[in-house]
Amino acid sequence: MSSENKGEKSRVENLDVEQGQEILPEQLTARKTDFSKWYNQVIQLAGLIDKRYNVKGCFVWLEYGYSVMLNIKKHWDELFKKAGIKELYFPLLVPLEYAKQNNDWFEGFKDQAFWVKGGVEGGEQYILRPTGEPAMYPMFKLWIRTHKDLPLRVYETVSSFRYETKHTRPLIRDREITVWHEIHTAHASKLEADEEAKLHEKLYDELWRVIAVKPLKVWKPKWEVFPGAIGAIEYYAIMPDGRALENGSINLLGQAYAKKFGITFKDANGEEKFAWQVCTGNGARLLVAAIATHGDDRGLVLPPRIAPIKVVIVPILFKDAKREVETLALEVSEMLSKAGIENVVDLNDETPGSKFYYWELKGVPLRIEIGPEELNTGELTIFKRNDYKKLRVAKQQVVDVVKKLLVQIQEELLVKASEAFEKSFVEVNSKQELVEAVNNKKVAVVHWCGSGDCWDEIKNLAEGVELFGTDLKPSKGKCVICGKECNSKGYVAKTY
Amino acid sequence: MSSENKGEKSRVENLDVEQGQEILPEQLTARKTDFSKWYNQVIQLAGLIDKRYNVKGCFVWLEYGYSVMLNIKKHWDELFKKAGIKELYFPLLVPLEYAKQNNDWFEGFKDQAFWVKGGVEGGEQYILRPTGEPAMYPMFKLWIRTHKDLPLRVYETVSSFRYETKHTRPLIRDREITVWHEIHTAHASKLEADEEAKLHEKLYDELWRVIAVKPLKVWKPKWEVFPGAIGAIEYYAIMPDGRALENGSINLLGQAYAKKFGITFKDANGEEKFAWQVCTGNGARLLVAAIATHGDDRGLVLPPRIAPIKVVIVPILFKDAKREVETLALEVSEMLSKAGIENVVDLNDETPGSKFYYWELKGVPLRIEIGPEELNTGELTIFKRNDYKKLRVAKQQVVDVVKKLLVQIQEELLVKASEAFEKSFVEVNSKQELVEAVNNKKVAVVHWCGSGDCWDEIKNLAEGVELFGTDLKPSKGKCVICGKECNSKGYVAKTY
Repeated sequence: MSSENKGEKSRVENLDVEQGQEILPEQLTARKTDFSKWYNQVIQLAGLIDKRYNVKGCFVWLEYGYSVMLNIKKHWDELFKKAGIKELYFPLLVPLEYAKQNNDWFEGFKDQAFWVKGGVEGGEQYILRPTGEPAMYPMFKLWIRTHKDLPLRVYETVSSFRYETKHTRPLIRDREITVWHEIHTAHASKLEADEEAKLHEKLYDELWRVIAVKPLKVWKPKWEVFPGAIGAIEYYAIMPDGRALENGSINLLGQAYAKKFGITFKDANGEEKFAWQVCTGNGARLLVAAIATHGDDRGLVLPPRIAPIKVVIVPILFKDAKREVETLALEVSEMLSKAGIENVVDLNDETPGSKFYYWELKGVPLRIEIGPEELNTGELTIFKRNDYKKLRVAKQQVVDVVKKLLVQIQEELLVKASEAFEKSFVEVNSKQELVEAVNNKKVAVVHWCGSGDCWDEIKNLAEGVELFGTDLKPSKGKCVICGKECNSKGYVAKTY
Repeated sequence: MSSENKGEKSRVENLDVEQGQEILPEQLTARKTDFSKWYNQVIQLAGLIDKRYNVKGCFVWLEYGYSVMLNIKKHWDELFKKAGIKELYFPLLVPLEYAKQNNDWFEGFKDQAFWVKGGVEGGEQYILRPTGEPAMYPMFKLWIRTHKDLPLRVYETVSSFRYETKHTRPLIRDREITVWHEIHTAHASKLEADEEAKLHEKLYDELWRVIAVKPLKVWKPKWEVFPGAIGAIEYYAIMPDGRALENGSINLLGQAYAKKFGITFKDANGEEKFAWQVCTGNGARLLVAAIATHGDDRGLVLPPRIAPIKVVIVPILFKDAKREVETLALEVSEMLSKAGIENVVDLNDETPGSKFYYWELKGVPLRIEIGPEELNTGELTIFKRNDYKKLRVAKQQVVDVVKKLLVQIQEELLVKASEAFEKSFVEVNSKQELVEAVNNKKVAVVHWCGSGDCWDEIKNLAEGVELFGTDLKPSKGKCVICGKECNSKGYVAKTY
């Protein structure tokens, strides 16, 4: 959003609907009371998306929402490219011949695929890309011949498609999974693949700092990993309702896919070997984590690093001083713009209160209020969206102060998010405590022996709960179910 | 591409194939001899795309090609957003209910649509977005209620899909039309829509300056315009083989689509009226125009404004001075990087000749050669890809000189392209001259009375020719077919 946008409000974003009915911004549900409802309302009210596009699991990204999402994308583009991972683009149509190279997967997946044929009579059949492997790996096979062609490290940002039969929810469970990235790499040895995975972890940790959210990192239960793969690190955002949202994964594929797709290379001795692979992906759920973690009863609270508008300037217009106030507002806007700080001046013909409301709903990090008092004293009032604190600052200092505040807010959000994160876990030692924890909207942390029987039994303790992952670090204790000594802690919650 | 890429050559890009067979870079067909073959070879040899993805009309964008394309996209993003046109994203699945609102079109199109169904058994049916209207206009209908909601000015960059039955050709005629943008606007009056169209013309003219190519702008023949629409301005690139490539269009839709999709608004008097619309689109064919216009027998010549790498530094390594030469090369690279100039140092273990060859093929605007001589004299050799001229420059001046050269090359390319453009037309006054002109690979400029009969007769004069558009300015003369006095000049050529 350019600073030339002088606060002209998009009418597209102003439309407020919830299941076909209009709701007014002031009817926004309290976040703590019903997080799920709050979420569904706020993404529409704040002008992120429009849910009324008439295909289940698909929606329109509105300007404001798409800007925030593209800001997150800009960070991953920078991070990945700086790490030497090359951006490519693969077609959305996947031929069956590619998909069937991984036939076990395909047989299980085909009812969740979107099937495509050309023309009414129907020529060749395809599926819409469900995930990167079947589009990418047949090309990897062509590109990789000898060890000199390795490592191969590429990514793309693209939509993925899944004919989701579960309840869909925008940005969380879609049929068109938009603004989704996948990194796919191939290496000559397990060691190199392991190092690549560690690098991906660092890149992802940085992406979480961009959205100012602390994630939970776990090992995926081994039976949920692709047969033959080594394992997967999964990121989870813990939502305000105590449910865990899977939010990115780093998959140590080992040679499992290489064997399916025939991705081999000649090593230095001329011996034919299978490549070792890593694939890593995430997308709009990062935005969900930011919305869910930082938002409040007034709407969004956007971390400065992803906010398309950093500052809104609201002139408080009184008849006598109208022109002077506007002039000062535009002057301050110009100062901020010159310093590269995206801002808008809201010159619309509305009360200051309704302007405050509108921009708070959209989560703009800072508001500068300029009225007759500010004119008289030469000091501006700055309002921080994240903690409602106000401060006054001389006009000459405004650029420096705004810059500092934007950095400060980013930090404050992460601190607050981390505190909430720590409080969302309860270590428990019995089944009863586990059930209590989950009922209190906490994630239960338990020792677990690693057996499938105990895992299944945990699932039966309460509706919808599961042990969705284990801690990356070993930890001695007794399994919450069978009492056996074990060396692993697991996380139990309802998941999205 | 970051300056941190120290010349590591992507092996993905090194694969050379033409119809399944490998060809070597030095086998690149001469551009004048067989432009079509040259084009097909150069896009693969220069590492722009890989054609071997096994779906007709689909290909993989390789890193280098995708970087160039995204650089062009970056320009349109900046231009459109600065003009206040908002970026949105609409789903790729279009429900039949949306598509059928324009039922005449749909009946004609449905055999060129990609049909989608969810799952094997098949739930709802959709088509993959063939063009923006059926995805966007049902939403426009929801968003526009009164004159206060106008103008509505949005764009998106997205793939479009067409089950193309004609011969496909990468970037020119694809089944997945990638990196494609469409601007769609709605206005309260014809006057406002006309002004919007004029603005789009300015934006497009600037995009053509970005690629340093002079386009031909024409009115589309009226019977090829959507029924009820006012007209369309089309951009054409004139290719080296004298054929015309449609390359972007600005469509004055009038109220034709508004009537199909029911896009109405209440005016200031409360009267219900249909909106006036403009839609404007183009995409990867801009890259085709740049490739075709500037390229030569050594490969691509990229205009600096879209080149991902502006400078390649080639150390010429001799045993004695190897270390000093490398050190100097890296120092110069650092100087350029600090000035924000994307560059690579090619430290690979190859002869200087093969390095020159490689980077010339990729069209990098400038090459800096650093060898023992440069070490001794303290002067660097700079080679200009566009005209093979060399100059010598003191190390201290290298950043300034490179900056100036990049601007200069951009201008030189446009001048050369404009000269070639002017030479590609021949004004003719008879059928025989017309046929001669077309056989000489020129675009014939003729007077034309505007009648369908004469238009049809022109088509019959030579295989594949057509009068594809008329000059934007009126011009008195006699129709080349019927001899009637008329006020319009038309362009006749084979088209892609």
